[in-house]
Amino acid sequence: MGIHTYFRSLNELERIIRCPGKFKFEEHSVSAHSWKVVQYAKTLADIEEMHGVPVNWKKLYEITSSHDYGEIFIGDIKTPVKHSSPELRLLIQQVEEGMVDHFINEHIPEEFKSIFRRQLREGKDNSVEGLILEVADKMDQVYEAFAELQRGNTEKEFVVMYRNALIKIKQIRLHCVDYFLTHILPDMVNEESMSPINIKQITEEALSQ
Amino acid sequence: MGIHTYFRSLNELERIIRCPGKFKFEEHSVSAHSWKVVQYAKTLADIEEMHGVPVNWKKLYEITSSHDYGEIFIGDIKTPVKHSSPELRLLIQQVEEGMVDHFINEHIPEEFKSIFRRQLREGKDNSVEGLILEVADKMDQVYEAFAELQRGNTEKEFVVMYRNALIKIKQIRLHCVDYFLTHILPDMVNEESMSPINIKQITEEALSQ
Amino acid sequence: MGIHTYFRSLNELERIIRCPGKFKFEEHSVSAHSWKVVQYAKTLADIEEMHGVPVNWKKLYEITSSHDYGEIFIGDIKTPVKHSSPELRLLIQQVEEGMVDHFINEHIPEEFKSIFRRQLREGKDNSVEGLILEVADKMDQVYEAFAELQRGNTEKEFVVMYRNALIKIKQIRLHCVDYFLTHILPDMVNEESMSPINIKQITEEALSQ
Amino acid sequence: MGIHTYFRSLNELERIIRCPGKFKFEEHSVSAHSWKVVQYAKTLADIEEMHGVPVNWKKLYEITSSHDYGEIFIGDIKTPVKHSSPELRLLIQQVEEGMVDHFINEHIPEEFKSIFRRQLREGKDNSVEGLILEVADKMDQVYEAFAELQRGNTEKEFVVMYRNALIKIKQIRLHCVDYFLTHILPDMVNEESMSPINIKQITEEALSQ
Amino acid sequence: MGIHTYFRSLNELERIIRCPGKFKFEEHSVSAHSWKVVQYAKTLADIEEMHGVPVNWKKLYEITSSHDYGEIFIGDIKTPVKHSSPELRLLIQQVEEGMVDHFINEHIPEEFKSIFRRQLREGKDNSVEGLILEVADKMDQVYEAFAELQRGNTEKEFVVMYRNALIKIKQIRLHCVDYFLTHILPDMVNEESMSPINIKQITEEALSQ
Amino acid sequence: MGIHTYFRSLNELERIIRCPGKFKFEEHSVSAHSWKVVQYAKTLADIEEMHGVPVNWKKLYEITSSHDYGEIFIGDIKTPVKHSSPELRLLIQQVEEGMVDHFINEHIPEEFKSIFRRQLREGKDNSVEGLILEVADKMDQVYEAFAELQRGNTEKEFVVMYRNALIKIKQIRLHCVDYFLTHILPDMVNEESMSPINIKQITEEALSQ
Repeated sequence: MGIHTYFRSLNELERIIRCPGKFKFEEHSVSAHSWKVVQYAKTLADIEEMHGVPVNWKKLYEITSSHDYGEIFIGDIKTPVKHSSPELRLLIQQVEEGMVDHFINEHIPEEFKSIFRRQLREGKDNSVEGLILEVADKMDQVYEAFAELQRGNTEKEFVVMYRNALIKIKQIRLHCVDYFLTHILPDMVNEESMSPINIKQITEEALSQ
Repeated sequence: MGIHTYFRSLNELERIIRCPGKFKFEEHSVSAHSWKVVQYAKTLADIEEMHGVPVNWKKLYEITSSHDYGEIFIGDIKTPVKHSSPELRLLIQQVEEGMVDHFINEHIPEEFKSIFRRQLREGKDNSVEGLILEVADKMDQVYEAFAELQRGNTEKEFVVMYRNALIKIKQIRLHCVDYFLTHILPDMVNEESMSPINIKQITEEALSQ
Repeated sequence: MGIHTYFRSLNELERIIRCPGKFKFEEHSVSAHSWKVVQYAKTLADIEEMHGVPVNWKKLYEITSSHDYGEIFIGDIKTPVKHSSPELRLLIQQVEEGMVDHFINEHIPEEFKSIFRRQLREGKDNSVEGLILEVADKMDQVYEAFAELQRGNTEKEFVVMYRNALIKIKQIRLHCVDYFLTHILPDMVNEESMSPINIKQITEEALSQ
Repeated sequence: MGIHTYFRSLNELERIIRCPGKFKFEEHSVSAHSWKVVQYAKTLADIEEMHGVPVNWKKLYEITSSHDYGEIFIGDIKTPVKHSSPELRLLIQQVEEGMVDHFINEHIPEEFKSIFRRQLREGKDNSVEGLILEVADKMDQVYEAFAELQRGNTEKEFVVMYRNALIKIKQIRLHCVDYFLTHILPDMVNEESMSPINIKQITEEALSQ
Repeated sequence: MGIHTYFRSLNELERIIRCPGKFKFEEHSVSAHSWKVVQYAKTLADIEEMHGVPVNWKKLYEITSSHDYGEIFIGDIKTPVKHSSPELRLLIQQVEEGMVDHFINEHIPEEFKSIFRRQLREGKDNSVEGLILEVADKMDQVYEAFAELQRGNTEKEFVVMYRNALIKIKQIRLHCVDYFLTHILPDMVNEESMSPINIKQITEEALSQ
Repeated sequence: MGIHTYFRSLNELERIIRCPGKFKFEEHSVSAHSWKVVQYAKTLADIEEMHGVPVNWKKLYEITSSHDYGEIFIGDIKTPVKHSSPELRLLIQQVEEGMVDHFINEHIPEEFKSIFRRQLREGKDNSVEGLILEVADKMDQVYEAFAELQRGNTEKEFVVMYRNALIKIKQIRLHCVDYFLTHILPDMVNEESMSPINIKQITEEALSQ
């Protein structure tokens, strides 16, 4: 039915809740997450530019805003499942790409097809924009998990999410990662916390990996 | 950590909502769905017994109550994804079984292991109990989709869910299916409805497949 | 209108929330509770069988799955009210039974009437199945109250619920009660907790009653 | 613990939802209902005063604001249960009064005891204030049920609630009832509606009882 | 359309949530808040009467029950905005009054106009009734903020709300304020708390201002 | 406290619900709305580029993603209030800008100050990017209001919102507006609808303004 079908489908990501099955004090939809990733990425890219790194803003716009659009087709598959075997991970990725392709073929008008194929591809490549997306995406996991732990959530999954996201971020070589680790993370960790879990210690341990 | 880990995990199915992404007037958790399947299956089995068919109640108990337990591990994967290719469907099933196995190996005490392996296996075989589970599971899709359509939900997905579940039920040769089609379904379809969609016509068309 | 009226009514228990009026971090519907009781009871019965106790699985299926169905008619009456006087408790029970009877007479087809009368009766008798139901029902109160206390809920009602359920369970002579007290409860109590309330001490005090 | 215990308990009525078990497009807490009853009653009393009827505002204040406070103790008992037999109705009322009395004795300081006994008594007597409370309470049932029917809710319970509340209001001889029937109700009934149920006809039929 | 339009509009305050934007464990609607203010004010007025202070109950009824009705027109404007400049505060108040006036002119029948103008005016004047309203309104902020802090909410806004409301209450010279400070507040502060924030110390500091 | 304070504040827009006070079948947070505006704007800009209009993607990124950030400071002020007088509208805008300025001065590190001042300014100027933002923002009102009307919501406010947004869009001279009016809107209006309100007629009337 054309672009209307695509615009209408955006609403679906408001109804998909992240981290299903686990107890949480506050739920986050995929669309709210997507918006925060867009916002983080903007500031991260500003930091890169401040260090003289050129940023392709059109590409950054495209890959950050659409990075979880595929969840409309595959629903909410838990991370451990996606990663349980390289074979499965690959196949799920193929299916997601296949369904996105199918959607574009069926609903997107001819003149937009190549644009949508570019926008809805996996954006996390090794370009500066792809790396910024990776950092921004993981940064939202850090914020989500930290807020739960801070309010006293004792679900192990949030400790794992917090720790793994930090380790992943630390491995990416960008000026904005340095800024995050030296200026943003310390402010977060120093906030008052309810948790019987020692968030500071987990942070230090993760950063020393 | 033993049986406690298993008992505690049951709580997770209260937090997984069926049919994610689609607008619905009323949400259903996987645990509420599981309870209704247990209840439908009980009456369906009563009907079989009334026709002289022997029912293994222990088996029926085991397979109906646990039939969606695996969703704790794989999360909520949309039906179209599961069925998009026989290859994917098989692989996802293997992963789910692998994760259930892993859970049993890690958390279930030695003396319970064989019991849990039996209980958490896929229950929809060709035995009368397996077929009753299949009917009860589809019957809940019929009830869920009908209630949405009746209140005026215009999402196509509920029309598809209603129709496909009816077609699937009709193909199963059980006394209780006859009873459902001749005594229960007509009462449902004759309820007052808000819908601009002609539910009666969809019902007749599906039953004539 | 027949079995359809009964099947449709099951949906109502998803809309009745346990422990109304009290603050809780997580709500539980009567249907989610019912499903967990079905699941606990299955494992408890497995333990009895492991000790050579014969279990009537059809009876266990019937009484666990339907044990709170009467709440559809009487709504959510707080436990203190039910127990405030033996006279009131008796009368409320009579009314509930009267309304279940009325429902069966009005809606259930002749050939199912005796089956439904048996299934919707009070199941907590002194048979091994009745006692397992009693244990499973109280065990869910233990899990519900513990989770609230663990997350830092300071409502006195959850301390009372946790303590009374434990005392009740302890008084029932079943192999599965021994297993619960020696293998399951310790794992639960040793989890990390937010609570300023000393759950371990309450547990020990309750078990020494 | 004194007046604090009473003030703190008010919060509980925000967590008790009216008409439990039935599907509704919008939920109403007992405290929101109580506030609307206070507001309706104020205008109804203004109408009485405009016709020269003296109103005791202190009494009206006391009985309207607290008229459902007892639900804190007895929880949400469905109307059909309360009315299923005169014997049960009487006993439940006695229990509610007993629990209110118990609360006052245990928590309310000596110098406030008589005030609270007066305020927390049943207010629906035959005084003009008591009758206004009765009208205002039923008027909120009319508004609640109408809004559900108007949005297309097909639950029979809301038709019954709407109809019974209208019949009850009509039987009370007050100037404000005349005003409601001739000026307010027609505006309500003439609003646009989604319903396949003929609300106008139910209204006319109820008023002709 | 007359009084019906007014009665129907009351429902809107159930859908406006206090303190928007901040994380909270429990949400409160403006109508639930309004009802609690009505209840607190009743007891506060009782205390004044016990000390021989005459209370105009009709006026108290009118100003407490309607004190936040204007939020229907202006929506939920954050307190810091309202108070950011005396000029803005005045203008917003003028707009709110203008919209209330507009509503009365358009919807309220002639014979009720003067009554509604009196009832929907700002009630917080220097009469004993106006001061009681001010105390009751701030008291609900104390209760709301305390409950959040007690459960471990670390949002600074609730500390500020708690502290400012206490300071405001303390400055009002009424017998009921003395009673609140000496009998009610100590019971509240002595409750068990989860908070890493020292509520007792904040209380003492605020009262010494 | 630096960039952390800004990143953390983004979470607040998930808790502010659009169109407060009105009944709706589905709620939308400001952050979900913001993400949809980012997505619409991307496709609208693609259409402009297809017609040879140069787009400044960095500017478009900045103004679309942050266009409602100011709601964190001023909360949810209803549109009629904002527009009730040019004087008020101006003053509210000044206050919002003042609070954003205050936030930047207090929390944003020196080297980011000018960037944030540019990003958090009002973006709806007469540049192609500013006009695209205006269209995308109104387009989301069209989608929100249409979905409510389609499901049978009879609140007048959604008719007004739908109509006014269409009129506003129509007045903007952009290639993407032509595309919206000729290709997207007709697909939307032709969807099945529950509404007793004639959406097609309102659409035609609005477009002929």
